[in-house]
Amino acid sequence: MPADLSGATRVIFIVGDPIAQVKSPAGVTEMLRARGADAVVVPAHVAPRDLAAWVTAISAMRNCDGIIVTLPHKFAVLSLCQDITAAARSIGAVNTMRRDARGAWFGDMLDGAGYVSGLRRAGCDPAGKATLLVGAGGAGSAIAHALVDAGIASLALHDANDARCETLAHKLASYGAVEITRGSADPTGYDLVINATPMGMQPGDPLPVEAGRLAATTFVGDVVTLPAVPPLIAAARARGCATMTGAQMFEAVRDRMVDFFMSK
Amino acid sequence: MPADLSGATRVIFIVGDPIAQVKSPAGVTEMLRARGADAVVVPAHVAPRDLAAWVTAISAMRNCDGIIVTLPHKFAVLSLCQDITAAARSIGAVNTMRRDARGAWFGDMLDGAGYVSGLRRAGCDPAGKATLLVGAGGAGSAIAHALVDAGIASLALHDANDARCETLAHKLASYGAVEITRGSADPTGYDLVINATPMGMQPGDPLPVEAGRLAATTFVGDVVTLPAVPPLIAAARARGCATMTGAQMFEAVRDRMVDFFMSK
Repeated sequence: MPADLSGATRVIFIVGDPIAQVKSPAGVTEMLRARGADAVVVPAHVAPRDLAAWVTAISAMRNCDGIIVTLPHKFAVLSLCQDITAAARSIGAVNTMRRDARGAWFGDMLDGAGYVSGLRRAGCDPAGKATLLVGAGGAGSAIAHALVDAGIASLALHDANDARCETLAHKLASYGAVEITRGSADPTGYDLVINATPMGMQPGDPLPVEAGRLAATTFVGDVVTLPAVPPLIAAARARGCATMTGAQMFEAVRDRMVDFFMSK
Repeated sequence: MPADLSGATRVIFIVGDPIAQVKSPAGVTEMLRARGADAVVVPAHVAPRDLAAWVTAISAMRNCDGIIVTLPHKFAVLSLCQDITAAARSIGAVNTMRRDARGAWFGDMLDGAGYVSGLRRAGCDPAGKATLLVGAGGAGSAIAHALVDAGIASLALHDANDARCETLAHKLASYGAVEITRGSADPTGYDLVINATPMGMQPGDPLPVEAGRLAATTFVGDVVTLPAVPPLIAAARARGCATMTGAQMFEAVRDRMVDFFMSK
């Protein structure tokens, strides 16, 4: 129960369509309060056609300090921010917004940075690693940019959709100095292999990489949160690999969001 | 802590300028949850010039079910409601808004109805009572309409501001069938005496009525919440009168708000 909720409480929205499935309001509120913020995270169910007007009006709420952005709004909010990070600009998406001193919106895309935080927490520093990333969609794009920021040695991209792969490679070439190649489902020779596709959520999904070729020295990460141990992670563990699940990533992303709000 | 806050939680705003002084978000949230609603009351600090745009945008938030309206917005929101009660229309103010099935805003003014609930809870049924009301401002106007609804025998109005007194008498004449007269600070002959002015908040304020003339059979109510026992109530108790304080009224108004939201 929000026993210490009051008129002085600062408000952070989490906006999506739908929004009822989101679990983070309680957790992020607790994390903010544990760090001394009198703040509450409140769900906002807003349709795409209403998003711009809603953000404008929320800006008139002087006790609203931030917005966490979830599907399908991560792309649309980009143009509603007055300032964004270089990563958000290159990815073309924003998932967290805070007010600056003038009240303007500053946006960042923390999904990838959170993923890298999670990797480090799980014992894998991406710096210098030859990396295979499967999936060049929204999640893959965010993770790829954060891997470049983290100083990986090289990045091989693998996606069934050629155009998506090329678009991401093009963005990354402008973003940072890293060797980008086209990968495949063969994980041979990589230090770090990450699945950023939904493969593994549905029973009977094929594995995103050929798990039988994973070396025990390869670190394997996934973005799938359900099941808690996705098939790729189970297979990698059976091969002796160290791993990170989607649930661990999710925790790390929330930590980055709280850091972002607290560093206002 | 809002442990059960989630994406499925319904949102009710309390809007004002300022808003930090408001204590009710925690209390009304608890009352709603005690009655089975997965809802949270969230403060919104909105300036008068931004109010209309803010209400419009909040209307696009599909999980927003209501707005509690506090100063200075109780008059301005009236025209932002698509439907209002007869009492709210006559008073010219709204303090609680909920969405109807189409998503349109239905507004009511519950300050007076809450006051009458509080009187009944304190043992005073206003029906048939000869009543003296001191103060014809916002609070007095709301209480006067609810007293008419509750079937008082007659209403004497007393206010230092003649125009305000006449305006309220005029509104009440159109609103309900009750004898309206001009009263004074003399409480002689009334069954029920209510102070709806701020008199008693500041040390040294004169009493709103001549307490020495209160009969022990007269019920005395006040709207002053600080001090918890205002001077008029202390004087009335010394005369043997039954009483109701502003704090008791405040509790009853919150109950009416919860009823209003739950009867959607």
